[in-house]
Amino acid sequence: MSGPAVRPERVLADLRELDALTGGPDGARRTCWGPEWQAARSFLRERLEQLPVRVELDAAGNLWATLRGRSDRTVVVGSHLDSVPRGGSLDGALGVLAGLELLRCRAATGTPPSTLALVDWADEEGVRFGRSLFGSSAVAGTLDPLALAGRRDAAGASIEDVLAQAGVDLARVRDAAERRPAIDAYAELHIEQGPVLERARVPAAAVSGTAGSRRARVAFHGQAAHAGTTPIDMRRDALAAAARFVLAVRDEARAGGGVATVGELRIAGGAANVVPGLVELTLDQRHADDSRLAAMAEAARAACAEIATAEGVEGTCEELWAIDPVAFDERLVVAARAACSAAGGAGEAIASGALHDATEIARIAPSVMVFASSSRGLSHCPEEATPDADVAVAVTAFAATVEQLLHGWDGPPAEISSI
Amino acid sequence: MSGPAVRPERVLADLRELDALTGGPDGARRTCWGPEWQAARSFLRERLEQLPVRVELDAAGNLWATLRGRSDRTVVVGSHLDSVPRGGSLDGALGVLAGLELLRCRAATGTPPSTLALVDWADEEGVRFGRSLFGSSAVAGTLDPLALAGRRDAAGASIEDVLAQAGVDLARVRDAAERRPAIDAYAELHIEQGPVLERARVPAAAVSGTAGSRRARVAFHGQAAHAGTTPIDMRRDALAAAARFVLAVRDEARAGGGVATVGELRIAGGAANVVPGLVELTLDQRHADDSRLAAMAEAARAACAEIATAEGVEGTCEELWAIDPVAFDERLVVAARAACSAAGGAGEAIASGALHDATEIARIAPSVMVFASSSRGLSHCPEEATPDADVAVAVTAFAATVEQLLHGWDGPPAEISSI
Repeated sequence: MSGPAVRPERVLADLRELDALTGGPDGARRTCWGPEWQAARSFLRERLEQLPVRVELDAAGNLWATLRGRSDRTVVVGSHLDSVPRGGSLDGALGVLAGLELLRCRAATGTPPSTLALVDWADEEGVRFGRSLFGSSAVAGTLDPLALAGRRDAAGASIEDVLAQAGVDLARVRDAAERRPAIDAYAELHIEQGPVLERARVPAAAVSGTAGSRRARVAFHGQAAHAGTTPIDMRRDALAAAARFVLAVRDEARAGGGVATVGELRIAGGAANVVPGLVELTLDQRHADDSRLAAMAEAARAACAEIATAEGVEGTCEELWAIDPVAFDERLVVAARAACSAAGGAGEAIASGALHDATEIARIAPSVMVFASSSRGLSHCPEEATPDADVAVAVTAFAATVEQLLHGWDGPPAEISSI
Repeated sequence: MSGPAVRPERVLADLRELDALTGGPDGARRTCWGPEWQAARSFLRERLEQLPVRVELDAAGNLWATLRGRSDRTVVVGSHLDSVPRGGSLDGALGVLAGLELLRCRAATGTPPSTLALVDWADEEGVRFGRSLFGSSAVAGTLDPLALAGRRDAAGASIEDVLAQAGVDLARVRDAAERRPAIDAYAELHIEQGPVLERARVPAAAVSGTAGSRRARVAFHGQAAHAGTTPIDMRRDALAAAARFVLAVRDEARAGGGVATVGELRIAGGAANVVPGLVELTLDQRHADDSRLAAMAEAARAACAEIATAEGVEGTCEELWAIDPVAFDERLVVAARAACSAAGGAGEAIASGALHDATEIARIAPSVMVFASSSRGLSHCPEEATPDADVAVAVTAFAATVEQLLHGWDGPPAEISSI
């Protein structure tokens, strides 16, 4: 680890300044393409202007800042400045501002061994037009602009107009894939957005990959009936079936080491004195292992059918989409584990239950992430927080990981082979 | 049973004519105080004009038609012409038109031994202003007009204006209680609105009383969390708690011989990828036995607390209202059981899970009901139906019950004492 000393306090100071500008007590307001997001980008550009870096926008609106190295081999670090409405100050911004700090450190000590680029991905959250990982998937080649054509946000503005105002032509966003050959490795620092590290009293950890997820729409059709005149055993109660399903998928997830969530549930035409005749719900299942995820989905379909039969209702389970688990590059994960351990974090990697821009970039280049702990596991809310000391450990570990990547990653170097 | 032969086919013909006028394939449209309800009343008045009866409106808008008997002792029969929107053709109308047939039969054979009055209760359903059993509770003395003052319907019309157009002064509705001394017995024919008689292959039965009901609002407060990043055992999932509660209150009702219904359930701010942080639901519990109903309510409160503790969430259970069970008059129930049995219905009485105008009138006078079967237990919908043959049995049994009441009810007469 021969690089310059990173200064986490500068990252914390930048985070606070950005929050004062585009957030506050009611949370971050950096919805992508909007004025606060543009203000955040100006904040970043002002700092980049102090550095010997080339700043460019790509065809998908991603902002790149490149510090030339002695070799063309390019290590990319990045995350996203955009946030959900009433979001947290760290989600995305931590990774971008830590990357800024790495550029600052590296620019201060002469030409790095490899080229170092920072990217601020556009529209990671997908708040306005319902497509998350917008900019990173454009670079990865998995974004289909035709599927987005004509979409409008809640205020009625079309995606074409909104992107055009930000200098992006929706029809040409796939041109951002031209960046692919220039990414030799990718590293992203992010908050965990879950309670696992805090519970384990660990400030930071390497991430082994992102879990796969499957989304299904489930419905139970019974018979609406009078709550007073219909004896329990003559009912075809759609909510009773749904309640059994909610508990069954949770039991299955717990047994299989994954997670399952029923986050939406609606009684059609419900009234206090009417036995529910139709209940619709969503099921979100996640697991880092593909075959276990498939088994969880199959078990949910079976539970839907069995419960429907037992309750005398009709049950349907329709898969809406599936995202396969993505494993990060083994060598990079080993490097990040070593860096985390040395900085005071975990020696083991954890899986991410959430998707990140790194999930997309891992499709096209060796990638890895480092997580900082999240207080109470909260994210996407104004209460989102990480102790400063944990941010410092995570930034230090991330910097050490990137420094090693800048020096090459053909096999684990001697100093971490004993992990 | 010395009275004239009742002709159920005339009741069926009147029901069909009324349905052609104020109902149809999309269901009954006789929302109280509206034009179709007024049309139904005109339909009834036209038929009453053919009979030697005195027709009056009371202060609550109830329509009375009185056939003087040899004595002032008055037997009242009745039900309601008003319906829910898209309601059924039988709910309420069956009882009123059967009463019309009794007046017709009795008027055709000279002065009855007691006075016979038909009442069409106003606003049994309470659709527009949220107060069911309006007219009957005004007569029973349990209606508080101050609690209704200023209420508006969905179109913005005030209850005062709507009632005034129907000749009713809201401030004076309690004057309808003047009718109380003139009710020496009350009998009501109604459809069951549940599946019990059909399942037992019984066309009609006497009703022992109406179940008590308790309504509660239940909430589980957990912690909204990311569906991907929050392991199952670190969640405080409000929906999982609610699911356990739904099943627990059902088990309790089944074991206790009552019913329990969760008919409304809402996830606050729910999204497919968010662990539910707050779930609110309603609980409706009913039982014909007061102490068992109280035990069910207590068990629900205990289940709420126990489940909340087990799931690490906060649970609250707030009682909204309670209606005590009402038992009908024992002697009248014995008479109705005998009449049902003789006509081809059940020898035993069943409890009503729904409230009826008879529930109110039972507070002030000996009362009883007769139920006709309901096909598939459906009511409050266009599909509401009863086989003609079952209507015939029910009308015949009802007529025999009323005939016996007209002859006095001081102890069961010899011919039914052997039941």
